[in-house]
Amino acid sequence: MKAARFYDRQDIRIEDIPEPELLPGTVGIDVAWCGICGTDLHEYLEGPIFVPPKGHPHPISGEEAPVTLGHEFSGTVNALGDGVTDLHVGQKVVVEPYIIRDDVEVGPGKEYQLSKDMNFIGLGGRGGGLAEKIVVERRWVHPIADDVALDEAALIEPLSVAHHAFVRSGAASGQTALVGGAGPIGLLTAAILKAEGLTVYISELSEKRKQMARDAGVADEVFDPRDGDVAEAVRARTDDEGTDVAFECSSVPAVLDTLIDAVRPGGTVVNVSIWGHKPEVDMPKLVLKEIDLRGTIGYANDHRATIELVESGKLDLAPFITARIPLDDLVTGGFQQLIENNESHVKILVDPHA
Amino acid sequence: MKAARFYDRQDIRIEDIPEPELLPGTVGIDVAWCGICGTDLHEYLEGPIFVPPKGHPHPISGEEAPVTLGHEFSGTVNALGDGVTDLHVGQKVVVEPYIIRDDVEVGPGKEYQLSKDMNFIGLGGRGGGLAEKIVVERRWVHPIADDVALDEAALIEPLSVAHHAFVRSGAASGQTALVGGAGPIGLLTAAILKAEGLTVYISELSEKRKQMARDAGVADEVFDPRDGDVAEAVRARTDDEGTDVAFECSSVPAVLDTLIDAVRPGGTVVNVSIWGHKPEVDMPKLVLKEIDLRGTIGYANDHRATIELVESGKLDLAPFITARIPLDDLVTGGFQQLIENNESHVKILVDPHA
Ligand SMILES: NC(=O)c1ccc[n+]([C@@H]2O[C@H](COP(=O)([O-])OP(=O)(O)OC[C@H]3O[C@@H](n4cnc5c(N)ncnc54)[C@H](O)[C@@H]3O)[C@@H](O)[C@H]2O)c1
Ligand SMILES: NC(=O)c1ccc[n+]([C@@H]2O[C@H](COP(=O)([O-])OP(=O)(O)OC[C@H]3O[C@@H](n4cnc5c(N)ncnc54)[C@H](O)[C@@H]3O)[C@@H](O)[C@H]2O)c1
Ligand SMILES: [Zn+2]
Ligand SMILES: [Zn+2]
Repeated sequence: MKAARFYDRQDIRIEDIPEPELLPGTVGIDVAWCGICGTDLHEYLEGPIFVPPKGHPHPISGEEAPVTLGHEFSGTVNALGDGVTDLHVGQKVVVEPYIIRDDVEVGPGKEYQLSKDMNFIGLGGRGGGLAEKIVVERRWVHPIADDVALDEAALIEPLSVAHHAFVRSGAASGQTALVGGAGPIGLLTAAILKAEGLTVYISELSEKRKQMARDAGVADEVFDPRDGDVAEAVRARTDDEGTDVAFECSSVPAVLDTLIDAVRPGGTVVNVSIWGHKPEVDMPKLVLKEIDLRGTIGYANDHRATIELVESGKLDLAPFITARIPLDDLVTGGFQQLIENNESHVKILVDPHA
Repeated sequence: MKAARFYDRQDIRIEDIPEPELLPGTVGIDVAWCGICGTDLHEYLEGPIFVPPKGHPHPISGEEAPVTLGHEFSGTVNALGDGVTDLHVGQKVVVEPYIIRDDVEVGPGKEYQLSKDMNFIGLGGRGGGLAEKIVVERRWVHPIADDVALDEAALIEPLSVAHHAFVRSGAASGQTALVGGAGPIGLLTAAILKAEGLTVYISELSEKRKQMARDAGVADEVFDPRDGDVAEAVRARTDDEGTDVAFECSSVPAVLDTLIDAVRPGGTVVNVSIWGHKPEVDMPKLVLKEIDLRGTIGYANDHRATIELVESGKLDLAPFITARIPLDDLVTGGFQQLIENNESHVKILVDPHA
């Protein structure tokens, strides 16, 4: 079968590899669509980061580069391993793409995303969504309703990241939120917040992304920091208080400071972005306002609620699909597009069979 | 009456001033003891910070320098203003030294410490504990049991800061904590944590303060970062996990990083220290470990619980009193001592009548 394999920085190859083996307790899946993620782009430009480099096999998967890429995918079940009786062939599914030790408990209340050596399918081994087929342990396979389109379903993985950030914030319907940065993660975070009944403000620099936020209807108002102090603007709309919660989705220190400034005293800032360095943080204000600054990584027990939001129609993922390409075009139509035209895209979907 | 008055940086004068007027709803107090705080020292060396400078009256108190200093004090009631019926003359009391707008609600669940323009009695006006007498609004006066010594009671104010930090952490009996920095605030935080049933580790550089932490019995183990990686040492004692909570009490960026390293995934770091600048924070680790970094300022609804801990005998404040001086010696025996011999002291108490 065809698969996109990460060999090294700037060296991703579309190859023919053997089909994965169906083992007891696993599910065989025909991949329908797979999204390209900022993390994949980081691997391409600066990696290997999550990918275990050649000679350094991952402690759980035992695999090293080359590995198959792709962790944001949807598909249909094509085979069930021994013991898997609660799914059927032909069923639509998405995958929670974790590589986690067998003895780590998974389930409500369990913080398995924080377990030792956690990595992701499609980065740390165990196949990936940028291939025609994949075999996944039953516990990571989530069925979705027949009427959910498989292209939109490929966005459920990053949407679960956003859902987890929302859960981490402790926010509730009727509250106010500011999202800093409207890239794919910021937009999906805003979409979750709107669907959960919050008033949502967005701060973003890029014209195209401001427009996207407006067109997708995920923000009550979109601010540009070049037009004036965003924290002031937010306070003016929240009884001079500030928002209940804020979400850092840009990895820009000035944005983090704006969020600390813009939440109300006692408010919560969830940091969703991944930092490559240690930024200066406005600790003086964090202390005097008693702010909670919370990290969030991946998801844990978020897929079910996220899928239900999508199934209910409360949240429309279609506006976020900005291109569809065949697997053979992955590097030029995918990675190069994101490098040259990042602002024009939210999610580029790859069809591994085309 | 005699009072210590802050005029300007390095200009504190012991003067004779008129006694404060008893108004309806207020309580007259004979001050017994008043502690000198790091905040007072900051005002002396780098102020005015909390003190409203001459020409800039505080929006709530309406006062400006010179103001009477002292916010950590105990005393006995000497008079009751009209309408105050639930206290009696001769009763031992401590003061929660807030200057807060009249219309801000005070009581369980209310975060009045975060209200606009909040300041402190003894810094922002309304008299201070470094004077023979003070008159305080009823709502800030907390009675204490007759058998609590008035010298120890002067430490209830900074102990309430520590209690509030504990509450902010969400920690519970049986959990583990690391305290970074064993100055007065770190030691009192450790004392609260021990009294609340936690296992407490301390990281501290100063020999004298390490010894003080051991002598006062507030730590299960005291580490010196020069002897090896404190986060490693803590993990070795917590099933390779890290502590549940940690408390930054040093304003040193390296200590904050150590705490972020030393808490378990999903753990909480409470920042008690006040920062004069924006430190670099290990956001990469905060995100990947899903840490909560929480600010804490002052106290809110903490005095009752703090007083009960002291009354119960679960917590002994006597070891933390390292000197007693008369008011006339405030600058030489107080501030100069703390400048030259800070490590030898925890709390210097001032007798305003001597
Ligand atoms: N925590 C997790 O589990 C998780 C998962 C996936 C991605 N991420 C991280 O989330 C972050 C966002 O991902 P993305 O794909 O959306 O990134 P992106 O780079 O596409 O989006 C960032 C956005 O921030 C905007 N921005 C930059 N400076 C700004 C400023 N000063 N004010 C306002 N907006 C500004 C940019 O214009 C851009 O639209 C990345 O750091 C990524 O690594 C985290
Ligand atoms: N949040 C609040 O409401 C509140 C209230 C009062 C005080 N404070 C703040 O709390 C902080 C502590 O106050 P304090 O009076 O105890 O201060 P302090 O300066 O006396 O104590 C700091 C301690 O940290 C130690 N230290 C320094 N570098 C270290 C390192 N690398 N590793 C380990 N220990 C190290 C010092 O030796 C010292 O003992 C101050 O910033 C103060 O302003 C906050
Ligand atoms: Zn992704
Ligand atoms: Zn103090």
